Amino acid sequence: MQGHEEFTAAAASLLGPRGFTQDPDLVDPWLTDWRGRYTGRALGLASPASTAEVAALVKLCSAQGVPLVPQGGNSGMSGGATPDASGHALVVSLRRMNAITRIDEQAREITCQAGVILQALHEAVAPLGLRFPLTLGGKGSATIGGLISTNAGGTQVLRHGSMRAQVLGIEAVLADGSVFDALVPLKKDNRGFDLKQLLIGSEGTLGVITGATLRLLPALADRAVLWAGLNDIRAARKLLVHTETLAGDALEGFEVMPRHSLNAVLDHNPRARNPLAGDHAWYALIELVADAAGAAALPDRAQTLLESAFAAGLVEDATIAMNETQAEEFWALRDEIAPAERALGPAMQHDISVPVARMADFVAETLPQVEARFPGCTAVAFGHLGDGNVHYHVLAPQGAVRGDWEAREGKEISAFIHDLVTAWQGSISAEHGIGQMKVGELARLADPVHLAILASVKRALDPRGLLNPGKLIPSS
Amino acid sequence: MQGHEEFTAAAASLLGPRGFTQDPDLVDPWLTDWRGRYTGRALGLASPASTAEVAALVKLCSAQGVPLVPQGGNSGMSGGATPDASGHALVVSLRRMNAITRIDEQAREITCQAGVILQALHEAVAPLGLRFPLTLGGKGSATIGGLISTNAGGTQVLRHGSMRAQVLGIEAVLADGSVFDALVPLKKDNRGFDLKQLLIGSEGTLGVITGATLRLLPALADRAVLWAGLNDIRAARKLLVHTETLAGDALEGFEVMPRHSLNAVLDHNPRARNPLAGDHAWYALIELVADAAGAAALPDRAQTLLESAFAAGLVEDATIAMNETQAEEFWALRDEIAPAERALGPAMQHDISVPVARMADFVAETLPQVEARFPGCTAVAFGHLGDGNVHYHVLAPQGAVRGDWEAREGKEISAFIHDLVTAWQGSISAEHGIGQMKVGELARLADPVHLAILASVKRALDPRGLLNPGKLIPSS
Repeated sequence: MQGHEEFTAAAASLLGPRGFTQDPDLVDPWLTDWRGRYTGRALGLASPASTAEVAALVKLCSAQGVPLVPQGGNSGMSGGATPDASGHALVVSLRRMNAITRIDEQAREITCQAGVILQALHEAVAPLGLRFPLTLGGKGSATIGGLISTNAGGTQVLRHGSMRAQVLGIEAVLADGSVFDALVPLKKDNRGFDLKQLLIGSEGTLGVITGATLRLLPALADRAVLWAGLNDIRAARKLLVHTETLAGDALEGFEVMPRHSLNAVLDHNPRARNPLAGDHAWYALIELVADAAGAAALPDRAQTLLESAFAAGLVEDATIAMNETQAEEFWALRDEIAPAERALGPAMQHDISVPVARMADFVAETLPQVEARFPGCTAVAFGHLGDGNVHYHVLAPQGAVRGDWEAREGKEISAFIHDLVTAWQGSISAEHGIGQMKVGELARLADPVHLAILASVKRALDPRGLLNPGKLIPSS
Repeated sequence: MQGHEEFTAAAASLLGPRGFTQDPDLVDPWLTDWRGRYTGRALGLASPASTAEVAALVKLCSAQGVPLVPQGGNSGMSGGATPDASGHALVVSLRRMNAITRIDEQAREITCQAGVILQALHEAVAPLGLRFPLTLGGKGSATIGGLISTNAGGTQVLRHGSMRAQVLGIEAVLADGSVFDALVPLKKDNRGFDLKQLLIGSEGTLGVITGATLRLLPALADRAVLWAGLNDIRAARKLLVHTETLAGDALEGFEVMPRHSLNAVLDHNPRARNPLAGDHAWYALIELVADAAGAAALPDRAQTLLESAFAAGLVEDATIAMNETQAEEFWALRDEIAPAERALGPAMQHDISVPVARMADFVAETLPQVEARFPGCTAVAFGHLGDGNVHYHVLAPQGAVRGDWEAREGKEISAFIHDLVTAWQGSISAEHGIGQMKVGELARLADPVHLAILASVKRALDPRGLLNPGKLIPSS
């Protein structure tokens, strides 16, 4: 980029050769999101090594009017960490800031820098008999800062909540380069509205998260994983309520998938096996967990659940994983849906939520509406029924050409689904955030009062709009 | 008040005779906070009956530049709902808006207007086998709107969190009279930073909360209440960790009090009895709970806890309440500390927190420092050790005259304690909020970055400063 020599020289001087580069070989991999949907350009890649360096860099950006795009593992789903095409922005990677700075076993807290990878966090606390109760498919690349910025979800939200519920403290660099330091967690603190809540889910638009203190839980001693075949999605809802009543806090996961998704996985992965002999319209994957105190009672608890579900006519068939290997196999069937569906051909994917109690009805009523509106397409929904959140995919008609079909049909399909979700009082982004992918749809569909608050808080904290421009906040 | 005839006529016309009054007999009781510490004046008392009326009223206030002071049960601890002395502000009571509009037993949610009194909420859900997991001394007057505005705490925060953790949805009227409607709860919703989080704990400075959706839990089937005598506060910390390890989620309350507080209660209430034969430096009150599934195991669990605490040398003596009556008696000893201490004479009271793990050390180290600095005073701390939150009282020397002593010594004493808390990385308001009482101390002690964000968010959402002026946000 031309015209930015003064800035790039200052950034290079500030951060040193490991902290700043314009070498296309090093920069380009971070200019495209991992799904290959968005590609931007950038002035360069900054990789600060400390909060002080981030603060100095943001001050420099502020002084020179250079926009910046914070980036963690670059594994987001909405293009939130990819710069625009102008080439005026700086990508600021937090990946070098990957130190775990404190683990307090007794208080069950961990403090770390923003660039720590989720899997590394899991591995750091496991030997201490502790666990971090959030995981997701991208755990090998997703960073703590990115997870907080997008208020990430995953398969344990049912019991433990999203990232918001895990965050005890935050450190962030604000638009003027000042450091917001709230790393020391206080269980009770009523000195005004909670500023760290603003940063959670703000997708880098209000500040650059540089560190966090997170809660930990005692490690699990055992789990029981059930697989059930159901005649329809409303039966899954009934089974969920039944399970919540019977299992209470032991219920940690409740995922659903239709026949279509299971078959896609079985076709895609020759080693995958159907846990049940027969064929069912829907499947539910249920995980019950226990700590050391409850482990002895867990098998009985799972068995009782299974038998009572049969007795109540909630399941057509069901089985309990006999051992940890089989439990992993059950979960693999769920985790492999996304790649298996991808292999079938082009699809439009939607991460949506409606009120938990209404999700089964939403799925049952709207899947046929989508297929009627877009003949030849197949609509499938799978995922976190217990959170009122499913991944709602519309698969192209057979023979559709990848890239071409999405470009031609995608926008209309997504708009149709987002309209349905909005009519059902739901959210067009349940757990993936808005990023650049959904910013137009947010502007189109969100309550104007909601949008006005987003915009005014953004203006208040980043008056020049230098933090991750074009993401999350519709330009007015 | 003169010069506001046009406004008061319009307000009277808008709200009708039940909704607007200037009659001093009706207005004056709401111009003094319940502890009698703050008295203000007001243009009148508005009591809107619906969100639409609140919105119209706020629009009117906005058009005419009239500040407004939202008020719930007027049972706050920091003067947050008392107008200033100017007489220019309107008190807006939410007490008429006391309808429970929806209970979803299966989803375990309740939606209600802001003026519903906490105890009424408890009583509405109990017959359904559900409970709302937050309670506090003022439950007979505190309203849901006030509890959200102050992010209220209480004795169940240890397990269930503050009000913030109970709020699934909010409806509020913003400074321009627009209605922010987020009453329908979505378990997952990542459409930007969570605006309802801003309103929680904002003490009426960002909007007038008009309704909320709250989470409910299954009713408890049984509880076990333990009373322990300890040789010092650090033993209480060890006992807390021991109890957390052994009882896990069954632990719902862990309160501590020193000998001084127990003796004050025993002196104050002739019917109160000491649960233990001997005398101890500190006491801990522990509550374990169980739902229907866990009730059978609860007595054994409590007994095991008691025996292991003896065996580990954590307690000098301890007992388990033999029945519900005795359990109530144990809790009454805790609940009566505040009035009992008040009866002893004047005192300066502080609602403070430090990181949970450090609270025992904080108490042990700072009580003597306070007594050394203010000779003749007695410093006592009691309350929510498990939340890192104690009520830290400094009792006047014998013979001090109420009113006179506080006026002469109070500010210096509070400043000394707030300085200590700040040095220990704690909060000068753990659960009572800032209100008008602590706004000066917040300005003096808070991180300037924190203050700058508070001020800029306030300016963004209430640019003319009409919402509860003089509370929470230090004027710059």
